[in-house]
Amino acid sequence: MAIIIDGKLIAAQVKEEIAAEVLKMKEQGLRAPALAVVMVGNEGASATYVASKVKSCQQVGFESIDLHFPEDISEETLLQTIQDLNNNPGVDGFIVQLPLPSHINEDKVIAAVNPDKDVDGFHPSNVGKMALNIPAFVSATPAGIMELIARYKIETDGKEIVVLGRSNIVGTPISILLSRKAYPGNGTVTLCHSRTKNLKEVCSRADILIVAIGKPEFVTADMVKPGATVIDVGIHRIPSTETKSGFRIIGDVQFESVSQVAGYITPVPGGVGLMTIVSLLQNTLKAAKEKRKEGPTA
Amino acid sequence: MAIIIDGKLIAAQVKEEIAAEVLKMKEQGLRAPALAVVMVGNEGASATYVASKVKSCQQVGFESIDLHFPEDISEETLLQTIQDLNNNPGVDGFIVQLPLPSHINEDKVIAAVNPDKDVDGFHPSNVGKMALNIPAFVSATPAGIMELIARYKIETDGKEIVVLGRSNIVGTPISILLSRKAYPGNGTVTLCHSRTKNLKEVCSRADILIVAIGKPEFVTADMVKPGATVIDVGIHRIPSTETKSGFRIIGDVQFESVSQVAGYITPVPGGVGLMTIVSLLQNTLKAAKEKRKEGPTA
Repeated sequence: MAIIIDGKLIAAQVKEEIAAEVLKMKEQGLRAPALAVVMVGNEGASATYVASKVKSCQQVGFESIDLHFPEDISEETLLQTIQDLNNNPGVDGFIVQLPLPSHINEDKVIAAVNPDKDVDGFHPSNVGKMALNIPAFVSATPAGIMELIARYKIETDGKEIVVLGRSNIVGTPISILLSRKAYPGNGTVTLCHSRTKNLKEVCSRADILIVAIGKPEFVTADMVKPGATVIDVGIHRIPSTETKSGFRIIGDVQFESVSQVAGYITPVPGGVGLMTIVSLLQNTLKAAKEKRKEGPTA
Repeated sequence: MAIIIDGKLIAAQVKEEIAAEVLKMKEQGLRAPALAVVMVGNEGASATYVASKVKSCQQVGFESIDLHFPEDISEETLLQTIQDLNNNPGVDGFIVQLPLPSHINEDKVIAAVNPDKDVDGFHPSNVGKMALNIPAFVSATPAGIMELIARYKIETDGKEIVVLGRSNIVGTPISILLSRKAYPGNGTVTLCHSRTKNLKEVCSRADILIVAIGKPEFVTADMVKPGATVIDVGIHRIPSTETKSGFRIIGDVQFESVSQVAGYITPVPGGVGLMTIVSLLQNTLKAAKEKRKEGPTA
């Protein structure tokens, strides 16, 4: 039976560490780190995420600024808001909750964020720096995976690492990060996707298997090398007669069977998902510290 | 015996195509694309590369601007020169020949180049856009490899592609490009490096093997799957009693034995190396066209 990688535990630990740092900053007479969250419209899932981000900020002692705009805000007004946040010395970092309404160009909005305040790590300049192994803001999910691997001291050097899914926000960045000269890193990484042939065979090679393919319980025990570390990024809500709510949450990995074979495994819920907000807090703390370094006005 | 991928032939073809486009631009009364090359110091290899870039510009009808500074130029003066080039409407693209003397911070210099004129594709913003599958300037060697694969119509979709070497300018970007949803692309890419174990086994899986490891004749026939495409990025000058010059050029692949096994192979010299300048010309043409789109002043 695999060792469970406890995202809840690690998330709580990291939050405590951040809270301790914030306390120290305040004791030194410094302003607490400030994160602004921009949300457009009232989409249910986005509202839940934003609420949870704001709550996490409060837990660690950050200032949080919640900017909520109506669904029909013009692209121009949104871009102006971003410029204002770029120029606002009281804001260390900010994010624009995605997705945006279809009349707004997301790429344009992301490109408008000052990379030094881009704590979501979505700006091309941050993605590029990450690929070039220059210090950068790494986006939340890959950063959270890196943190779990590091905290559980999972060996990555020279290991075969297989990543399932090539999305811009998970698969592609984590594949780059884990092949860099660093720890976690130095892995021999293979990036798989919908066009990969013999997926089962490729997965079976993996000492570390990272699954971000967006298909419920796609990875089964026969695809996993005995003793491998399995990181499950999927989150799916499926109907269930066994819960009061009428649904339950599952991942991209068939947990029950795979946990019999794997060496380490992240559960869903309680794994990677909880780390994403923590990564955002870490990035914001980092942004605040960088800003303090720049000069006395910050 | 493998089919030889003829870099010389393809480079000549692409140059002819570019020259034809430049002629058309001139006939329409438009200014020819202009590339500026900034060089610091007198390092022999750099001087050769720069001369060859300038000559290629002339061959296709580009304007070329050759800016040559002494070894002891200050970082400040160099950065000011870059700002001037960024602001100069007569310059479509420019490059700063690397390496720079040790008193100058290369990362800082690269970051100072306007990404829209960064025809070397080294700016983090261009690297990030490439990773995000947004149109960008791709650096010369990976772009040249993509061109060779495309011109020889080599199938990449769903193929196992192994890249040897994770450098910022070759291995990492080509591994990203070939896994993107595009052609060439859609491959199942594994990125290998000095920490990879069982390198021979990993290489043997490859339908396409891209070698940029910087070790003379490192890849031998027993590492290559019969029928595979082998792309050799290495360039090494070794002493030879068989040539008048007293040396000969070899690659990272043991050509004689590997060409017996492979389906396609690039020779050294005469393969990837000749494509790099062509890629630079392609990027400059693209920059000039983008600039024309922006407005009548361009």
